Order: sequence, then C-alpha cells, then structure tokens
Amino acid sequence: MGKRIVIIGGGAAGASAAARARRLDPEAEIVMLDKGLFISHAPCGIPYYIGGVVKEAQELAIYTPEEFAKERRITVKVNAEVFDVDTKNQVVYAREGNETVKYQWDVLIIATGAKPITLPVEGHDLNGILTLRLPHEAPKLREEVEKASTVAVVGGGYIGLEVAEALRNLGKRVLLFEMMPHVLPTTFDEDMAKLIHDELIKNGIELHLNEKVVGFRGVNGHVNKVITEKGEYNVDKVVMGVGVRPDVDLAVKAGAKIGETGAVWVNEYMETSVPNVYAAGDVAETWSLITGKRMYVALAPPANKMGQVAGANAVKGRFLKFPGVLGTAITKVFGLYVARTGLTEKQAREEGFKPVSATIKARTTAHYYPGGVQVNIKMIMDETSGRVLGVQIIGPDRIVAGYIDVAAALIGKGATVDDFFFADLSYSPPTAPVWHPLITAARVLSKGKY
Amino acid sequence: MGKRIVIIGGGAAGASAAARARRLDPEAEIVMLDKGLFISHAPCGIPYYIGGVVKEAQELAIYTPEEFAKERRITVKVNAEVFDVDTKNQVVYAREGNETVKYQWDVLIIATGAKPITLPVEGHDLNGILTLRLPHEAPKLREEVEKASTVAVVGGGYIGLEVAEALRNLGKRVLLFEMMPHVLPTTFDEDMAKLIHDELIKNGIELHLNEKVVGFRGVNGHVNKVITEKGEYNVDKVVMGVGVRPDVDLAVKAGAKIGETGAVWVNEYMETSVPNVYAAGDVAETWSLITGKRMYVALAPPANKMGQVAGANAVKGRFLKFPGVLGTAITKVFGLYVARTGLTEKQAREEGFKPVSATIKARTTAHYYPGGVQVNIKMIMDETSGRVLGVQIIGPDRIVAGYIDVAAALIGKGATVDDFFFADLSYSPPTAPVWHPLITAARVLSKGKY
Repeated sequence: MGKRIVIIGGGAAGASAAARARRLDPEAEIVMLDKGLFISHAPCGIPYYIGGVVKEAQELAIYTPEEFAKERRITVKVNAEVFDVDTKNQVVYAREGNETVKYQWDVLIIATGAKPITLPVEGHDLNGILTLRLPHEAPKLREEVEKASTVAVVGGGYIGLEVAEALRNLGKRVLLFEMMPHVLPTTFDEDMAKLIHDELIKNGIELHLNEKVVGFRGVNGHVNKVITEKGEYNVDKVVMGVGVRPDVDLAVKAGAKIGETGAVWVNEYMETSVPNVYAAGDVAETWSLITGKRMYVALAPPANKMGQVAGANAVKGRFLKFPGVLGTAITKVFGLYVARTGLTEKQAREEGFKPVSATIKARTTAHYYPGGVQVNIKMIMDETSGRVLGVQIIGPDRIVAGYIDVAAALIGKGATVDDFFFADLSYSPPTAPVWHPLITAARVLSKGKY
Repeated sequence: MGKRIVIIGGGAAGASAAARARRLDPEAEIVMLDKGLFISHAPCGIPYYIGGVVKEAQELAIYTPEEFAKERRITVKVNAEVFDVDTKNQVVYAREGNETVKYQWDVLIIATGAKPITLPVEGHDLNGILTLRLPHEAPKLREEVEKASTVAVVGGGYIGLEVAEALRNLGKRVLLFEMMPHVLPTTFDEDMAKLIHDELIKNGIELHLNEKVVGFRGVNGHVNKVITEKGEYNVDKVVMGVGVRPDVDLAVKAGAKIGETGAVWVNEYMETSVPNVYAAGDVAETWSLITGKRMYVALAPPANKMGQVAGANAVKGRFLKFPGVLGTAITKVFGLYVARTGLTEKQAREEGFKPVSATIKARTTAHYYPGGVQVNIKMIMDETSGRVLGVQIIGPDRIVAGYIDVAAALIGKGATVDDFFFADLSYSPPTAPVWHPLITAARVLSKGKY
C-alpha cells in the first residue's frame, strides 16, 4: 500500500501538490478535500467574471473535480470541510453534507489558502457588504452587484482596483476608498501610483484617498451608507478589497508554528514545524529573495510552486526547495498595465539599503515604427552594491508584462545595474527600441557610467 | 587641449561611442566621419521603409548630423569616406567631395560596420540586383522595386524574410531562395523554422528551400533571370539577403589583427591589437556568453553597447568591459513574431554539449480570458549541467519579445532549468497563464522533476 497523503484545499497550491505527488509516486493514496465546489480554481479571475469578460463561473476552474480525480487517480471531495486535525493519530475530520468523514494520513498538506480581511467596524456584517472569495460564489456576487447603481469598493489593492474596473464596465457609479495616500500602497511608490490615479479618475472612478472607512449603516439589515473619517456616502452595495489573511485555523489545530507574518511557518521544503505536515500556498509564509526576510505574499504563481514543492517532498522527502519570492505582480487598470517586482524605494529604505532610483518614459517600438506607446519605468538600486532592488512599470501595452518579467528574472539572479545594461535583449523595429526601455532605465540609474 | 578622438563610422556603434566619449570627457575633441549621409542610423528599418510602414527614409536616423554635432559638441562629417589609416603618425585621410582631409588622432575608433555579402556567381553585378546597406540609399531601392512585378529574394535570413514581407505588402510576386533546408538556418532549428515556412507560404511567398542560386542572367545589363541548381526563374528584380560581413578594410590598413571569424579581433575593452585603436559594432567580433568562443553577430543592440564601451574606454582607459552576447534576436514574419536566444539544439550538439530539448505550445493569457493566442516554445538544456542553453519562440503576439528577453536575461546569468521554474514571473488573467509559458517549457524539460 502506498503512502496516504491528505491535502486540505483544492486551490492552486493544493491541486499542484496533488498532481505532483501523483506524478512522482504512482502508488500513493491521495485525497484532496475542498470546502467549496470548485478545485484548481482561480480566484484571480473573479473580477473578470463580475465585469462580464468571463461568461461562466465554471470557466474559472481549470478542471472539474471529476476530471482531476480521474486523470490523476486522486480522491477528490468537494463540499468537504475539514474541521479538525489530529496529528497524534494522523487523521483529519471533514464535514461532507450531514456526515463526518475521517481520513487517515501519513503526510498532511495544508493548503487552506487565505480569506478576506473583515474590517472590525460598526456595521461590517450588514447584508450587501460583499467579499470575493471562492469562484463558485461568484454568480451570487454578480447578481448582487447587478442590482446596484452605486457601489463602494473599500481598499485600493489589486482586487479593489480590478473590482472597481469591473463595476464601471457594468455601468455602475463606483466610489473607491483607500486609507493610504495612494492605491497599491504596499507594492508601489507614490510617484508611480499617481499614474494609476489619473487612469482611475479618467475612467469615472470616484477616488477617495487618505480616507479611512470607519463604519457602515443600513436599513432593514442591508447596507446603504459608507461612513469614513471625512464623510458619509450613500451606496447600494459595498465590495470589500482590504486584503486577505492566511486561513491558519486548521494549521493551528495541527499545532503548526505560526510565523511572524501571521502565516504558517515553513522551511524551504514547505515542512511546517510538525513532522509530516506540510503547508503551501496562501496559508504559508515565504521569504524575500532580496532580503531573505519572511514575508506574506498571496499570489497564484508562488502558491502553485509551493504546492509543487510540498507535493514532491510529501512523496520523495527533501526533493525540492522553494527559493523565495520577489512579489512580482501585474494587473490591468482600465487601459494601463501596472506591474512591479522586488522592493519599492520606500521598502528599500526601510530595509536599510541606500536606494537611488531613476524614473523614465520610453517608447515600446523603434521611434519610426508606428504603433509604439510610452511606458513609465521606475528602477531602484542599492547605491552601495549597485544591485537592482526593484522595478515598477506602468503603460498602456501588454508588453509591460514582458518588461517586468525581464526585471524579475534579473533581480532574482542578483543582477546589478551593469547586468541590466549588458543584458542581451532582443530588438527589432516592431517590437522594441534599440535601447530596450529597461536598459535605458539602467543607463539613467548608472549616473553617467553608461 | 583634450584628447583627440576620431571615430570612423556614424552608425549605431560609432554614434554611441561618440556620445559616450563626450559624456565622460567634456574636453575631448571628437570627430565622427561617415561615408553615407545619415548618422545614428538604423539599417534594420530599411525593410519597413521599402514596405511602406515607414514613410520617409530620414525617419530611420535618430538625429540629423547637425543635431548630433550641436548637442554633443562633436565634429560630424557625412559624405566623408576614410580611405587610409596611418597608425605611426596617428592620422586618417578622408575624401570629402573633391578634397582629401587629414585628421590627427590620439585614439581611433573603427566602427565601419558590415557590408552585404555578394555571391561570386555569374551575373552578380547586373543592374537590378539590389542590396540593403545604408538608409540614405533606401529611397532608390524602393523606387527600383516599385517598378517590378516579380522579385526574387536570395537568402532566408532576417533581412531576407523582412524584405520578402515588405515586397508582398507592395503587392509583388515574391520568390524566396534559401540554399539550406530551412529559413534562418544559423539561428533556428529546423523544427521551429517550419512554422515560419507555413506563415510565408500562407502569405503567398514562393518558397524555394534547398535551392542554391548559381547565377543571374540579364538583357541589356539588367537582371531578368535567377538561375539555381534546380531551374531558372524569370524576375524583374533581385534583392540579395545572403548576410553581411565585417567591413574590415580600414582595420587591416591600421594593422589590426583579424580574428578567426573574419571580423576585427578585440578584447573585452574593445581594444584592437593596435595600441590606441578600438573597434566596435558590426566590424568587430564578439564572443558567446555560453561557450566563451569568438563569434560574429551583426545586430544593433550589441553594436550600441560595444560602441559605448569603446567610447568610454577611449577617454577613461579600461573603464568598461563588454561581457559578450547570446545572439538574442527577434523579427516579425507577417503575423508571427519569431525570436531566439543562445544556442540552437544543433549548435549545442556541435559545441559538445549534451542537449535535450522540449517544444511546447502555450497560451498567452489565462485559459478563461479572451484574446489569448498560442505560442510555440523550444527550450534547449545541457543534460549534464541542467543549464539552459537556448530558447526559440514563435507566435502571433508581440509578447514573444517579452518571453525571449526573459529567457535571455536568465540564460545570460547562467540559469538552469530550476532557475527557470522558480523565476518569480508575473501573472494576471489578461497578461499570462498562471504557469508562464517559459516555466511550462522548463517543467516539460525537467522530465518530471517539476
């Protein structure tokens, strides 16, 4: 009989772990339990479903539970909510409809993901205050917002911005509240975020910065007012986008150590502090490739990779190591692509570096080739070592994704501004200027060396 | 009095060298001599001018000679053909109209570029056999081909493909001859090149592979037939695209060593074998970042960077080092973007590696996000070390440029397939699948490790 592996959570990390464990061990008995209805799902797609770009919520899952189970010979249970973990007897207990089912494990992988943060303010539990969580709940969410004419979005992070755009696309009046002086406050510097503000305002978003939401009021239990430090606003619905926190309840029950970030502590093998218990994805903490410090990043690509590492190591022991992250991320804000990697200038200063930065505008094609557009690039370097610490890019072309990935590839390998300058990047008149925009940024940053 | 610097050639390398020398030494006396009419020019743009995408040939130069001279306080002479170099007395002689002008130098930078290869076959000097060389000659070229109804393009390299497309866009019948079994024979593997063949044929190019041109015939001194090993073809014009070779005549006169590639030997400081004489750009040889071996790559981005290194070192001594190249390149072939970096599988084998490769198709957006297209990626790894040696990408989206640059960034830093897998690349539904296509290629290449 093969090793018995139980995976709690069928999202990005859980499904990756399951697939990888099966691939590396044809004998293992693998059980994947998810409290929702979808597996291998993509919560990142929910805003696009709400806005109507994606027609069916079912499209947000890559596989149906049946397909996934069959192709990989894995026992997949949806609507199966694990409520207790017993590490002494190596079992978990799940509620499946009216039944309680017990699963025995040799290895447990906790991939319970994250949950939206609720503001602990007056009226936070009124009806009509919505959160994005699981793809199978998205149709209800869409139905709710479709009835509204004015919607408040609380929080100017990635999800907040994406939902605000989706709501505008549905023709709603949208008020966006962010308590910090700029949107994407933890991932962008203010100078770059201002470009996003312009785009939001141009597209009719009513942007309320530096404005903390302190409560909600309602009639008949349904929200109809957002209360901030500065005023009161009549709304029909509220969508919360103030971020997520790791869903550590079951990890705590398993006795796993919680790290300084509030997420489950794991080492590079995705082992928790409890023998034979792994954690991966949005429930687990990770660490910066630049500073080595623990950080919490709830993004799909690292979740998938952590899942792979956990799944591989669950069957093969210490087979793969997760190296850490840069927090590379991108989103589309109306006509702008907005991307970042590494440290912001502010973060670099807080981390004790001596940051200098260059901000440039550059064209995306040769100057004479039609169709090129202008992108804005901010590059941050540690003056002492010459190492590039972070890059932020904003522009109206999808090639921004390519640029940020080049930056992430180089920064991930410890690149200096010299490495950026000499990177042998491609050129042809329709695809790039002869001096690639990232190289131009590095030149400006080099202060005359290049 | 400042150092006297004479630069022969005002193309990418020459103009970069001049600008850099001025920037680092406000006192230097800098003279830049070009035998053509443009400086800081872009021969890479000529096919787009011929095809009508670029309207005016003048657009192919970034600066006019006057602007460049004024902004940088540089003496710029166009129509000034250097015909002799005297390294003992440190002078060059230039023909400027009817005059011969002598320029004294302390440092000489040879940036004479490349010239088109002429086939040593019968009839090669007939009228109507055209080559792309200098941007200021482009209007004459366009005028010539506009009169034709059938045009043969000889050579299936980057220039050949770009010209063939331009001619089709002008409504010409186009015959493309390549003596090797596939187009881009030195930069792509055959399996990938086949995708380009399909695109060429779909767009009406008459593709003649494995077919060596052995001569031309004409009437009244003007070409009207291409003769190959396999047949004869009636044509009105011929455009030669069989490649370029370094224009080393003046370097030879200066006594500079010519390297094994036929280009001017230079070290990492862009110094030739002659004291105080530098060479940079398409006249100079470079070396592979992968094998360390000498190679000849006539592409604009390395030319610009070699120019920078030569210009900086001309005034500051051994200030900058050129690290080498991967031969990263991209072109557009009708609807396809065609890009490559590093070694092909064939080259890897010839260089003594033990190459294994993976070829995949991947989508450019999340599966549920509309507008994604499929790209083809071939990734080549050395089985012994796990190092990725090269990548080839073909697909109908400009994001191919972004992908190849990520690959180039990683390969340039010696990345293994593990580094590719764990590269922290960006994801959002409109911009990428959650597993980036390059990561998917690395997974397939890892043979089950990932």
